[in-house]
Parts: sequence; structure tokens; C-alpha cells
Amino acid sequence: MSPAPAVPLAAAKPAPLTRVDDAGVTTLTLDDPSSRNSLSEEMLAALGETFRAIAADRSVRAVVLAATGPVFSSGHNLKQMTARRADADRGRAYFAQVMDACAAVMQQIVALPQPVIAAVQGTATAAGCQLVATCDLAVASAKAQFCTPGVHIGLFCSTPMVALSRNVTPKHAMEMLLLGEMVPADEAFRMGLINRVVPAGEELAAAQSLARTIASKSTLTVATGKKTFYAQREMALGDAYRYAAAVMVDNMLARDAEEGIAATIEKRPAHWEDR
Amino acid sequence: MSPAPAVPLAAAKPAPLTRVDDAGVTTLTLDDPSSRNSLSEEMLAALGETFRAIAADRSVRAVVLAATGPVFSSGHNLKQMTARRADADRGRAYFAQVMDACAAVMQQIVALPQPVIAAVQGTATAAGCQLVATCDLAVASAKAQFCTPGVHIGLFCSTPMVALSRNVTPKHAMEMLLLGEMVPADEAFRMGLINRVVPAGEELAAAQSLARTIASKSTLTVATGKKTFYAQREMALGDAYRYAAAVMVDNMLARDAEEGIAATIEKRPAHWEDR
Amino acid sequence: MSPAPAVPLAAAKPAPLTRVDDAGVTTLTLDDPSSRNSLSEEMLAALGETFRAIAADRSVRAVVLAATGPVFSSGHNLKQMTARRADADRGRAYFAQVMDACAAVMQQIVALPQPVIAAVQGTATAAGCQLVATCDLAVASAKAQFCTPGVHIGLFCSTPMVALSRNVTPKHAMEMLLLGEMVPADEAFRMGLINRVVPAGEELAAAQSLARTIASKSTLTVATGKKTFYAQREMALGDAYRYAAAVMVDNMLARDAEEGIAATIEKRPAHWEDR
Repeated sequence: MSPAPAVPLAAAKPAPLTRVDDAGVTTLTLDDPSSRNSLSEEMLAALGETFRAIAADRSVRAVVLAATGPVFSSGHNLKQMTARRADADRGRAYFAQVMDACAAVMQQIVALPQPVIAAVQGTATAAGCQLVATCDLAVASAKAQFCTPGVHIGLFCSTPMVALSRNVTPKHAMEMLLLGEMVPADEAFRMGLINRVVPAGEELAAAQSLARTIASKSTLTVATGKKTFYAQREMALGDAYRYAAAVMVDNMLARDAEEGIAATIEKRPAHWEDR
Repeated sequence: MSPAPAVPLAAAKPAPLTRVDDAGVTTLTLDDPSSRNSLSEEMLAALGETFRAIAADRSVRAVVLAATGPVFSSGHNLKQMTARRADADRGRAYFAQVMDACAAVMQQIVALPQPVIAAVQGTATAAGCQLVATCDLAVASAKAQFCTPGVHIGLFCSTPMVALSRNVTPKHAMEMLLLGEMVPADEAFRMGLINRVVPAGEELAAAQSLARTIASKSTLTVATGKKTFYAQREMALGDAYRYAAAVMVDNMLARDAEEGIAATIEKRPAHWEDR
Repeated sequence: MSPAPAVPLAAAKPAPLTRVDDAGVTTLTLDDPSSRNSLSEEMLAALGETFRAIAADRSVRAVVLAATGPVFSSGHNLKQMTARRADADRGRAYFAQVMDACAAVMQQIVALPQPVIAAVQGTATAAGCQLVATCDLAVASAKAQFCTPGVHIGLFCSTPMVALSRNVTPKHAMEMLLLGEMVPADEAFRMGLINRVVPAGEELAAAQSLARTIASKSTLTVATGKKTFYAQREMALGDAYRYAAAVMVDNMLARDAEEGIAATIEKRPAHWEDR
């Protein structure tokens, strides 16, 4: 019941990301409020490294992605990027590296066997909004806000749009992208961008509660389902059915399905073992 | 006005599916409440055979898919499947056969020339929820509920997700798939999974009313439109326009469009003939 | 502040389409109320010619598409088309030409560098509804209505469905297409087909206000974003990220992003130059 205390990921300087593991639920917290939890070089590296570790960690069954301070994440670190305009190539190589790292982190979330649930306590803008759109589920504080404001600074939110446009209708996505206005939590809920809106301060507990529910299920089954979801989504209907039907047959033959179905028929709790 | 009485599809044992034809509207009723209208081997066979017959039956202009008892359909028949774990191959061949049969029935609904309208009186779970998601339209009782609960029994709803994820936003689909919670009718309406919520007990009449409206249109036109809808959906925008424009030209030259447009211009009722 | 007076696009006969340019915002008005702003041969030609001109006109930063009379647009001109049934080929060549012209206009809107905002004052039916679905954003009067009524006249709205089915969930699209019923503005808002519903008579001002907001941004940035949006939408996730990340790098190196980001860091207004 008493989880391990949060530890910095690197000893040298204050870690921008903390990790707490508790009974199968890992809570990652963006903890760099002085930069508004920007997706700085260091933050992207910490996220990349952490998701790599979690993907291989059989003790983790669900992940909550939270943040400290009034901002969930402000997206790319513009000061850091601007400093590299002095590079010989005006920053091109650096910008490409940062954009690739950011797109890689987003795709790590999609590819992660464990579901990732955003707990959005504050404002999520640009790549910060993309992070929420990319998570499998999202719970938001009633005070949370969502925004893709790149259009205001001459840098369109083109990578955030990849996640956003796969989550809401095109008119909603274009409204956010072209106007760059703040979208309150209840409006984001209406659009289908987030799953739940809870009173401010309850978002972390609510996300962790969903994560515990997921963690109580068969890990193999959840990982199978998440992988299948994103794979079949990009297929034509006939291909999707062929693929999903084959997944179902394999799933039926796994130990956890045999156990789970037997437990249901016998009206007893199931004991999961597959990982 | 007095439709033919419902007749069992097979004489040998009680039919799990009944069919009533009335003035162009065929009502199919899942009638196996003791198995919670599970998509058993027999039910899948009856659905497959019936949709094959309807596809070739020019007297059928629209189909309503209803059910008896408190459950619309509970999805696959787990007892039937579990019994086959005793097979030499642990059931693999049987499971593959059932999954293929189920995916085939879903795709028969999509390919059927006639629109299919679900009339959901109760709980629709797993492949039963998939059945609702697959129908062209769906009317639900205010008491209806929707659920993809495979995650609870170690068998992720991977084939149901194919239909579900093509009907609602990914956050909504993932919430249903990962949590396996019951979604009440009004929430399913908000997600866009169903078209109408009506007071309990009125769903069948409401679905049949929509079916009669559709049955009053040109059969050729409706079949053309349904086919085009699912085909163009999977194309890139330019391809979709090329295809749909060609469909429109052929449709314009059909007798029913000539008649329908002339009737509109002449302010008189149209008489449909094309089938 | 006093825009140029609206001028007819052709001297010979009353123009079906007027154009007013005001400080970067171009308002196009479908002005053929006697034909219910049908997409007649002349209207399609005027729209095609006008969008071609706007695409090359660096002074235009955003476009509003409005209409006069009680109908926004009724879609294809059925009288004009019916007259060509007397052609030797029963009209086939003419119908193909009209369908191609219409699909081309829709795709011109998508390909236009400037965002297009529909200001829907009245009823938008068939290809008129398609026009609204095709615009990047849409503002509607509370009295506006939306409908794809082709099913009533034997001519299914197969090209309108291309735009409609890419804007709303399939159950919503099929309901509109199969039933052909009028959908009031607030329902269209719920479906995600339109962005805003405003009191009747305020829709043009509201759309122009959004257009002015967009016109105040970097033209290069907005054009980049719009192009990227529609391109990445049709790609698989990994491809979309590769493409969008490359777009972001180029965007970062453009003068307007350098200026916009610097202005933000220095807390001063940005001055846009890229076109």
C-alpha cells in the first residue's frame, strides 16, 4: 500500500520526469514546471528511456502520465530550439533530431504493451496536447485546457495534428489548429478527445483508479488488445477482420483465456498468469 | 397489414432466429433467450443463411434486426467453445471456424444490398455489440446497454473492435475495450454508436418505422448508395471522388432517377421500378 | 475599412457568385436565390474560376463562403440536368462533365492554400451540404438545416457522402443518407459537421470574424498547416509522423517561425512576411 518514493531518473541534475511503481501501476510525472513541462531535449530523452524500460518490465501493467504545476505540458522547448538557430545549418539538424525524438516518443506510447492513461491537471498545448491525444485514455481536471497554438507563432502544429486528427472530427481538429484557441475540458470531452472530466485535483486519483482496473486484468490479453487496436485501425475492413479473427483464435488458446472463461462459467474469480 | 406469422427456419429444433416479412420490411429476431441470444454455431449459421437469402430476395427492401429477452446478444457462445478445448488441437480449428463464420456474418451485413437497422431492446455485449456497430443504423431502448467485456475473461474483444473502432472516436473505443464497462444507451448515443434512443418497448416499432421509410424509396438507389458508402470510405479522397462521380452518372441514367427527378419537378409522387 | 463593392464576375448575365475582398478576407457569396443557389453549370464554372484565382492571389488570406436567400445551396441543378436527357447519349456525357466539375470544385477547396469557412444562413442540401462538409470550418445560423435528400428522388447523394462520411461518424452519415431528413443546426453541431451555431443573421459576421483571426496569422504557416492536414490524414501513422516531422523542420527554418518564436520569447507582436 505504501509505494516506493519517487526517485529522480538521473543523479546529475533534477530529473524532469519521475516514476513511481505501485502494484502494477506506474505513474510517470512530468516534473519540470519551471519550463512548463516542455518536451525539452532532456524530457524527450527521459520519456524515451522510461518507455523503453517499461516496455520490457513485466511488473508494469498500466501507466499513468501526470504532471506537476499549472501546465500539463507546453510542447516543444522553444528557447532550447531558438538557441540552435546559431548553428552553422541554422539549426536544421537539431530541429530534425528533436522532431524525430518527439515523434518516436509518441509512437512508443502507441507501441507500448501497457495502456497509458493521461491525467491532465492543467493546460496541454502543442506537443503537450499531442501527448494527451496519443495516450490510450485521458482523464482531465475540470480546469484542464487543450490548445494547438502553433499558428500564433508561425509554427503550425503539424506533428500534433497527426494525433489530434486521429482523435476528433476534422472540423474540430481544424478549429483547434487554425484558431489556436484554448478548449476547456468539457468541450474536449464533447469532441471525444478525453474520456472523463473530474473535479480539479481528482484527475490523478481517477486515472490511477482506471489504471488499477486495467492492471487487474490479464496482462497478455490487454497487450494483445492494444496492439490489435492500432494495427487493425489502418487496414481495410476485410483485412482487419482476417487479422483480428486470427488474433482471437490465438487469444482463445492462451492460458489466461482458458482460465478466464472457465472462471466465468464456474462463477469464480480468475487467476491471471500470462505475461 | 397482417404480416405472415413468424416461422422457424428449421423444423428439427427450435429456431434461434425468426423471420417475418411485411411489405418490404423483413424483421429478423434473435430468439434464443436461454443462451442470451449468443452467436452460437447455430445462430451464426441461421444468420448467414438468412442474409444470403435476403441478398437475393427482391421483395426485401429493408431489414430490422431485433431480439427477444433482456439481452440483445451476448456474443460468442462460450460454453460451446469451451467444450471444444477437449479436441485434439485444443479447439484451434473449431475456434477459427467460429471466428471466420462470425466475421463473415458481419461482412454479409455490410455487403447486403438492403440497409439493416438494429432494434436494441437490451444488453448488447462483445460480438453482440459488434452486431449493433455493424448495422447501418441502430435504434435503442433507453434501457439498452453496450459493452465489450472480453478483457474481464482474458479474451480481448478484438473482432468487435473492428466494427466499434470504425464507429466511434478512438478514446471512446479504447475506454469500452480496456475497461469493459456497461455503456448506457444515452452515452452510446453521445458517442455516435447508435442513432436514436426511444422509451423502452418502442425500439422495435421505431426501427420498423425507419425501415418502412427506407422501403418506400427506390430499391436500386438505396442499394447503390449503401454499396458506394462502404466502398468509398476506404479510398483516398481523390479516388473516392472519381468512384462516386462515376456512380452518380450511372445512377442519373437509371430509370428510377429519371422518374424521381421528373416527379419532383412535376410535383407528383414517384413510382419506383428499378430493383 | 470600406471594402470594394461587390462586382459581378461576368458582364453578360447576372453573376451567380459575388466576391468581396476586405483586408485579406475574401467573401464569396452564392447569389442565385431563384435557383436556390444550385450548383448549376454556371455556378460551378464561377466557383472553379474564382478558386483558381484565389489560389494564386497573395492578397487573400482566408475565404468565407456565404449565400443569399433562404437556401445556402440546393446542390445540383436538376432542371438543367433533366433537359439534357434529350441528348443522343441520354445526357451521359453532360452528367459526367457536371459531376467531374463538382468534384473538382470540392477538391479545389481542399487544395486551396487559404482556409475556407462556410457561413450557412439557410438550408444546405445534397451537394450544397457537401460544400459545407468540404469547407475547413463552418459557422451556421440557428435556422440552418442540413440534408442529403437524394434518396427521395432516386439519385443517392453518392458524391456528397464522400465529404460527409469524412466529417461525421458512419451511423450519423448513414442516417442522413438513407433517411434524407432535415438535420437542424444544433444536431449538425452535435455530430461535428459544423463548428459553431449562432443566432440567425449573425453567421456571416461570425465567419468573417474567424476569417480575420486566421488572416492575422502567417500566410505561409497557415498554408503549410492546411496542406499537411489533408495529406497526413490519408497516411498510416508512421508515414504521417515522418511527413509531418519533415514539415515541422522546414517550418522552423522559415522566416515567419523565426520571427514568431522570437516575438513570443521577447513578448512583442510578430510581423509576418512569408507568403
